Amino acid sequence: MRASRFLFATLRETPNDAEVISHQLMLRAGMIRKLASGLYSWLPMGVRVLNKVEAIIREEMDRAGSLQVLMPVTQPASLWQESGRFVQYGPELLRFKDRHNNDFVLGPTHEEVITDLARNELKSYKQLPANFYQVQTKFRDEVRPRFGVMRSREFVMKDAYSFHADQESLQKTYDEMYEAYCRIFTRLGLDFRPVQADTGSIGGSGSHEFHVLASSGEDDIAFSTESDYAANVEMAEAILVGERAAPEQELKIVDTHNQKTIADVSAFLGTDAKDSVKALLVQGVAAKEGEDAPVVALFLRGDHELNEIKAEKHPLIAAPIAFATEEQMAALGLTAGFIGPQGLVEKGLTVIVDRAASVLSDFVAGANEADKHATGVNWERDAKFTEVYDLRNVVEGDPSPDGKGTILIKRGIEVGHIFQLGQKYSEALGCKVLGKDGKPFTVTMGCYGIGVTRVVASAIEQNFDDKGIIWPAAIAPFQVAIVPMNAHKSPRTMEAAEALYQELLAAGYDVILDDRDERPGVKFSDLEINGIPHRIVIGEKGLDAGTFEYKGRTDAESVNISKEEVLAKLAQ
Amino acid sequence: MRASRFLFATLRETPNDAEVISHQLMLRAGMIRKLASGLYSWLPMGVRVLNKVEAIIREEMDRAGSLQVLMPVTQPASLWQESGRFVQYGPELLRFKDRHNNDFVLGPTHEEVITDLARNELKSYKQLPANFYQVQTKFRDEVRPRFGVMRSREFVMKDAYSFHADQESLQKTYDEMYEAYCRIFTRLGLDFRPVQADTGSIGGSGSHEFHVLASSGEDDIAFSTESDYAANVEMAEAILVGERAAPEQELKIVDTHNQKTIADVSAFLGTDAKDSVKALLVQGVAAKEGEDAPVVALFLRGDHELNEIKAEKHPLIAAPIAFATEEQMAALGLTAGFIGPQGLVEKGLTVIVDRAASVLSDFVAGANEADKHATGVNWERDAKFTEVYDLRNVVEGDPSPDGKGTILIKRGIEVGHIFQLGQKYSEALGCKVLGKDGKPFTVTMGCYGIGVTRVVASAIEQNFDDKGIIWPAAIAPFQVAIVPMNAHKSPRTMEAAEALYQELLAAGYDVILDDRDERPGVKFSDLEINGIPHRIVIGEKGLDAGTFEYKGRTDAESVNISKEEVLAKLAQ
Repeated sequence: MRASRFLFATLRETPNDAEVISHQLMLRAGMIRKLASGLYSWLPMGVRVLNKVEAIIREEMDRAGSLQVLMPVTQPASLWQESGRFVQYGPELLRFKDRHNNDFVLGPTHEEVITDLARNELKSYKQLPANFYQVQTKFRDEVRPRFGVMRSREFVMKDAYSFHADQESLQKTYDEMYEAYCRIFTRLGLDFRPVQADTGSIGGSGSHEFHVLASSGEDDIAFSTESDYAANVEMAEAILVGERAAPEQELKIVDTHNQKTIADVSAFLGTDAKDSVKALLVQGVAAKEGEDAPVVALFLRGDHELNEIKAEKHPLIAAPIAFATEEQMAALGLTAGFIGPQGLVEKGLTVIVDRAASVLSDFVAGANEADKHATGVNWERDAKFTEVYDLRNVVEGDPSPDGKGTILIKRGIEVGHIFQLGQKYSEALGCKVLGKDGKPFTVTMGCYGIGVTRVVASAIEQNFDDKGIIWPAAIAPFQVAIVPMNAHKSPRTMEAAEALYQELLAAGYDVILDDRDERPGVKFSDLEINGIPHRIVIGEKGLDAGTFEYKGRTDAESVNISKEEVLAKLAQ
Repeated sequence: MRASRFLFATLRETPNDAEVISHQLMLRAGMIRKLASGLYSWLPMGVRVLNKVEAIIREEMDRAGSLQVLMPVTQPASLWQESGRFVQYGPELLRFKDRHNNDFVLGPTHEEVITDLARNELKSYKQLPANFYQVQTKFRDEVRPRFGVMRSREFVMKDAYSFHADQESLQKTYDEMYEAYCRIFTRLGLDFRPVQADTGSIGGSGSHEFHVLASSGEDDIAFSTESDYAANVEMAEAILVGERAAPEQELKIVDTHNQKTIADVSAFLGTDAKDSVKALLVQGVAAKEGEDAPVVALFLRGDHELNEIKAEKHPLIAAPIAFATEEQMAALGLTAGFIGPQGLVEKGLTVIVDRAASVLSDFVAGANEADKHATGVNWERDAKFTEVYDLRNVVEGDPSPDGKGTILIKRGIEVGHIFQLGQKYSEALGCKVLGKDGKPFTVTMGCYGIGVTRVVASAIEQNFDDKGIIWPAAIAPFQVAIVPMNAHKSPRTMEAAEALYQELLAAGYDVILDDRDERPGVKFSDLEINGIPHRIVIGEKGLDAGTFEYKGRTDAESVNISKEEVLAKLAQ
C-alpha cells in the first residue's frame, strides 16, 4: 500500500468521551469513528486489523472441523417465543415490527436460529456430532454503551454451535473448541487465560471464558500461584480453612451508637474486621406458591464480600438476589447495621453462614438492638445457624481450590466463551434426531463465541506505550513501513524506497510505503501510534553508506544496518 | 474436506414456493434455507460459494485502489433526516426505535453514513480522490420478497463510494470502477453486459448497470445487433426514422361504438395498430406555485408503449407520471378511449407527440366524441402539436441509437450498478473540503454497488441443466470431487482415494473426498446438483487397469483415463 493512497486519520488530541486506552488509541490512530452511541464505523486502518483477526479465527475454526454458515441478523420473534427468551431477555434485545406488523428482533446471539436450522436439517444420529460457525454482526441494545468497540451496541462476533448424541460427544467437541481457542488467541499474540466460568442464566453444565489479561479489564480472575487453576471470581470456590477454636470470651453488649459500618465498629472497638461477622438479610423462596417469601439471614466475615451468583444457587435463596424490605426487618424487630446471628434461628429464620465466618470464635456481631453490638460471640453457644455454605468472593491469599498454591487476582477482558448448553434450546425447540434404535431423541448442544471486534480493542489494552499501539505482529495493519526521507526532493531515496517496497511485497510482506508529502515527524508519529512493528527509513547518507535506518516499534533507538540485516530483522 | 464431516442437505423434491430456477436449485442443493419471508440462512455449501464471490470482489476493489471500511447496519435516523430520505424513502426503509426511544433505520444503503464520515475525515483537496468500500449486510423491507436470495429482505452487498474535487476526477474513478466491475464479473465466469441505465430518483449524471443475461431476468436490456451498444430499455433512445408523407386521405368520422382499445378499433376498421395514434392525458407542471396543474396530452403510435422515465424528464410533465382525472377530462369535454389530437392545442393543451407518431400520415385517432374515431387524420392539416419528443420504449427491430445495426432485447439480472451521484449527498450533508485557494468547496461523489448474495443466484440462473447447478470454476464450492467405490468394503479404493486427495490438496485444489457410507447414485447426484466441475471415481477395476473414471460436470459420459490425464483435465 502506498500511504498517499491510504487514509491516515490520526488525531492529535484524545477525544473527551474515551475513557479506556483502547478506545482513545483506536480513535487517535484513525481505526474507528463513532457514528452514534455504541455504533462505530471502522476506517481502513481498523478494517485491516479486523480482517486479520477474522482470518485467524476462521482458519482455526475450519481446522477444528466447524462448518461455516451465515444466519440473518434479523430474526423472527416467533423463534424467541418458542425458546422463552422473547420475554426473558431484557431490553438489550432490540425488538421491532416489519412493514407487515410482524415481530422481529435484531440478533444478539443465534441459538434459536441455529437450533431451528438443526431441527430441520439433522435427521439421524449418523449426522452427529455437527458443528457450525459464522462470523456475523450482532446487536445488543446496551443501556450505556461505553469503551468504544469494547462494549458497543453493534459488533462482530464469531459464534459456533455444536450438536451431539450425548454428553460424552459434547465434551469431546468442547475440548476441541477449547484447544482451537487456545490456538486462536496464541496466534493473535495475546496474553490470555481460559478460566472456569459461571453458566449463568443460559443454563448448562460447563463453561470457560477466555480472558485477555489487562489492568482495564472488567472481570476479576482468580489464579493459583502454583497451578493452572484459573476461574472467574464469580465462580472460584472459597474453600474452608482451619477449625473453629473453643470460646474464650464471654458475650458482652457494647454501646456502638452511630457506628454502623464494619470499619467504624472495628475502629471503635479496636478489633479487626476479620474478627467480626456481617449480616445480609435477603428474600428466600416461599415454601408454597402464593405464600409470602420468608427472610433468609446470611452471615459473612466482616472483611469478605457476598458473591451473589453463589448465593443465588442456594435452593432457599431467591434469584436474583433481593434484600429484605424495611417492613420485613421491622416485623422481625431488627435494625439494619446492628443485626447479629444470636436468636435468629429461634425466630424461625433460615441462617446461612459462609465457610470463613463459620470458623470464627469470640467474634463481634450486631446485638439485634439499635446502637448496640455484641463482642465475644460464639457459634453454637450464642448463635445457632441452619447451614454453612460458600457465599463469598475469594480474595488474594486464599488457598487455591485445587489445593495447589494460593489465589492471585488479576483483571481480564472476556474475549471468548465456550459453553456446554446441554438441552436447553434443543428441548425448547424440539430438536430431535433418530437414534440407532430408530427412536427420536433430543440432541445435546454446545456454543462457542469470540467477540471479534472486542479482540481488537483488548489487544490494544494489553499492548501500548506512550507513543501508541504496539500490535502483535500477526494482526498489525501493516508489518513493515518504508519511509524515504525528503522523498519529494530526493528522487534517489524515493527510487531506493520503491525498489525495497517491491522486493518486500514480492517476499510476501504486508508493507506500507510512506510516500506522502509530509514532514518525517508526522510520518513517524502516524506509524508509531498505529503500532507498525518494523520501520525502515531511507536517507541520502544511508544510501551513501549502504545502510538503512531500522527501528522496531519497541526499540529505544534506530540502528543503521545493511539491507541483509534489515531482512533478518523482518524474518525474525 | 471429507464429505463425512460436511453437511450435504440435498432435497429430492422442489419446494413449492420456489418460482425461479436459482431459488429451486439453491434449496435443493442445500445451499440456503428460509428462516422467514425474505430471510435466508446460508448452509456450509452456500457459504463456500459466497466466500469465493466475496474474495474476488475484494481483490479487485483493493487492486482498483478502493479502501475497505465497515459501517454499521444500524444507522441513526438523524442522518437520513439530513439527506431528506427519512421521509422520501418508502416503507422498504425499516425504521425502529432503540431502548432510549431514539429513531434508527436498518441500512438499505450507506450514502448518508459514508458522507458523514467523509465530511469529518476529509479536510483538503489533497485527500481527493478518495474511494471506500465495504462488504456488509443490508436490509430492505420488500413488500413481497421473492425468488430466494435474488430479492430477499436481508442481503450482502459490496458498496463503494468515491469523493472528488471535480467531475473530471469522478469520471476517472467511475471509469476505473467500470473496468474493475468488468474484471470482477469476468473472473466470476459470468456472461454479463454493462448497460447504460437511468439515474432515477437518486439523481446524478451517469450510470451503468451490470446485468447477467438470463431468461429469468427482471429487466429488459436493449442491444445492438452490430455494436457494443447496450442500455436498459428504460433508457434506450428511440431515434426518429423516416419522414412524414403528404396526406392522401380525407379526414372521416367513423362510429366505433364499444371499440375502445387500439386492438379493437384496428380490427373493427381493418387497419394496423401501426397506423393509429393513442392518447395519454397526464398531469403537467403548474406555471406558478399554487396554480392548478394543467393537463398535457401525449400521443404515441398505437403499437408503442409509453416510457414513463423518458416522459418524466420532460420539463412540462409532472414526475412521477400521474394520469388526468375524470374531472379534468370532463372539463375538457373528452372521453377516455376516444381522444384524438384534433383541436387540443386550440383548447389550450400542451400536445407532445412521440417521434414515431409524428411521422404518421392518414392515421386513425379518437374523434374527441364518445363512440367515434377519425380516419385519414394528418398532422398540421387536422391536428396541431406543441412538440415532438422521445416518449416510447424501444422495440426489437428499431435502429440502434448509435447508428449501427438494430435493437435486440434480452432479459438481464442486475448484479451491479455504478453511479455518478454528483453533489446530491455532499450538498445535503455539507461535505466540503478546502480547495487550493484555501476556500471550502462541496465534493462530488460516485457510488458503486454489487449484490454479493444476488451474484450467487444469478450465476445459477445462467448455468444449470436438468441435473442441477453448473458452477463457473472460480466459484464452485469445491473444484474436484473424489469418489471411492464401495469405500466401506474396499480398503484399496479408499486408500487410493485418500492418496489422490492428499496429492490434490497439496497441489492447491479445493477437493472434497466423498467418504460417506452412501450408494454411488446418491453421491453422484449430490455432486451433480451442486455443480462440482470435476468428478473422479476410483474403483477396483480401474485400479487394476491403472485408470480413474473421470467426468466433467457437463460431459455426457465419463472416461477411464490415467492419473496424468486426470491431472491435465484439472489443470485446464
